[in-house]
Amino acid sequence: MNRVTLAHGSGGQAMQQLIEQLFLTAFANPWLDEQEDQARLALSLLTGAGDRLAFSTDSYVIDPLCFPGGDIGKLAVCGTANDVAVSGALPRWLSCGFILEEGLELALLERIVASMAATARAAGIAIVTGDTKVVPRGAADKLFINTAGIGAIPVGLTWGASSIQPGDVVLVSGTLGDHGATILNLREGLGMTGELRSDCAVLTPLIQTLVNVPGIRALRDATRGGVNAVAHEFAARCGCGIELQERALPVKPAVRGLCELLGLDPLNFANEGKLAIVVARSAAERVLTTLHQHPLGRDAAIIGEVVAQKGVRLTGLYGVTRTLDLPHAEPLPRIC
Amino acid sequence: MNRVTLAHGSGGQAMQQLIEQLFLTAFANPWLDEQEDQARLALSLLTGAGDRLAFSTDSYVIDPLCFPGGDIGKLAVCGTANDVAVSGALPRWLSCGFILEEGLELALLERIVASMAATARAAGIAIVTGDTKVVPRGAADKLFINTAGIGAIPVGLTWGASSIQPGDVVLVSGTLGDHGATILNLREGLGMTGELRSDCAVLTPLIQTLVNVPGIRALRDATRGGVNAVAHEFAARCGCGIELQERALPVKPAVRGLCELLGLDPLNFANEGKLAIVVARSAAERVLTTLHQHPLGRDAAIIGEVVAQKGVRLTGLYGVTRTLDLPHAEPLPRIC
Repeated sequence: MNRVTLAHGSGGQAMQQLIEQLFLTAFANPWLDEQEDQARLALSLLTGAGDRLAFSTDSYVIDPLCFPGGDIGKLAVCGTANDVAVSGALPRWLSCGFILEEGLELALLERIVASMAATARAAGIAIVTGDTKVVPRGAADKLFINTAGIGAIPVGLTWGASSIQPGDVVLVSGTLGDHGATILNLREGLGMTGELRSDCAVLTPLIQTLVNVPGIRALRDATRGGVNAVAHEFAARCGCGIELQERALPVKPAVRGLCELLGLDPLNFANEGKLAIVVARSAAERVLTTLHQHPLGRDAAIIGEVVAQKGVRLTGLYGVTRTLDLPHAEPLPRIC
Repeated sequence: MNRVTLAHGSGGQAMQQLIEQLFLTAFANPWLDEQEDQARLALSLLTGAGDRLAFSTDSYVIDPLCFPGGDIGKLAVCGTANDVAVSGALPRWLSCGFILEEGLELALLERIVASMAATARAAGIAIVTGDTKVVPRGAADKLFINTAGIGAIPVGLTWGASSIQPGDVVLVSGTLGDHGATILNLREGLGMTGELRSDCAVLTPLIQTLVNVPGIRALRDATRGGVNAVAHEFAARCGCGIELQERALPVKPAVRGLCELLGLDPLNFANEGKLAIVVARSAAERVLTTLHQHPLGRDAAIIGEVVAQKGVRLTGLYGVTRTLDLPHAEPLPRIC
């Protein structure tokens, strides 16, 4: 039997075998080994680190499942870990729910599960509880994954968009749009090979270098909707405006080329390993230097500032400033 | 616009509107209102209650979405809350991830979200973080929901299958198979109307009556695979056997009729509001009395015992004992 069957999602023997032979083996850890209906996690492992739980979830429906730089399994760990980590917490535990389509190749599932396990292990994250559902052929497209993540936010750390104020400076931790451009290229068969690669990464090590740096207001990982969506969220939350400089945006040549070809803007493209950061002006240079010292932040750049006048604006290469609307929709569905 | 579009899953304006007008309104609570990438939950709200986190997840893919006694939204709260609650924890916070099919009626989504919100509120649970994805028509069947839940396990409470031992007694908290029979009847068009109703319920109030009762070994909610699957899990975990008495099984006449009609066994049918409980023999009567005093446990019964000889066995109405195998698969897919 080399394909997922409906029996793999039942409460019966086939499901038990799949759980034991695949998930328990790949994700091996003492919490999962208990095989209770819930993971039981000693709070003492967290409370040393902080006083608040950071708790986040994402479902992953990306098409195709595998792409240069990652796959849906790696993405499902990175994406949720990053949503926890941007609070300043160390992501520590993940849950994971699979929705499998009947007929999915088991070898592909094994490859994706191995990728999840390797990504989590490298990041010090344990996948401690899970669930598997199988739906009949045609009721889902191959494989969806949900993860939810937990970490503890250090005492006194209150990064958040509501603390942003006029005069603050906006940074990004690296080049924009790599993930979105990679998926678009694959899906539309644009044939730009060898140059495009998803930036999918767990950002915890980079974020942790910032935990003791004063003057940081807020962090977000700029995924669906890109830096533009984050800029709009920041602006709406703090009641100010954000002005970005087009010439300051770090964009790889291949991504820029693809955007020009299609008339798209890398600011709207999804990233899976990039931060948008707002800091007090006095902290901007120190934060930039700190980011540059880490491999995940070597292309970091200051890209704009916070102003009193509401809205998000972009000053173009020729000095003309225009309003950046939040698009009604993104360039393509199933980007993550 | 009265249907879900791909734009509702983008990082753009349409998604923001859906989140604000539907989810934030229905689930309203201070954690969700923050609209950060993660909920920030004061550990002090938990540590008063316990020393370990209970953390669990399930994805819900049930077909049809609405059924007598509930809908996928109510189920998504009850199922995960129960998986947390059977540890003895009070389920406190839920995450929620929606995967929507393009074209889904917004009115149906609103109805399901309202059902989630009402079920959670009644159970003292806050839905504090979430995610929405939309996939193109045909890439999913209408609507899937994942929830992950968190609570704190009271200090000193160590319910778990590994503490089960020969001589212990097995109870169930009420009639078996109501949920599975209800869904089977609907899906197969068997036409048994008015008598079948899912038992979908948050079991926390019932479970909390047991927290201070000594002699309780382990609890599970008997969902996919029914009480038979739980009996096999218990037996495998403790290295003992379980013997059940067929005449002791509480089964409603309509469920029994449907099972006889189709040659199926209510022991294998899914429940969504029933516990399987193992207790020390000396505690059995007290636990039974305690269960009977609560509306969710009024049909509770002692159904068997734990023995040294491995395996799960059933003694039939005429006194003949046979081995109960764990079926390879359940009676029907997409039961939850």
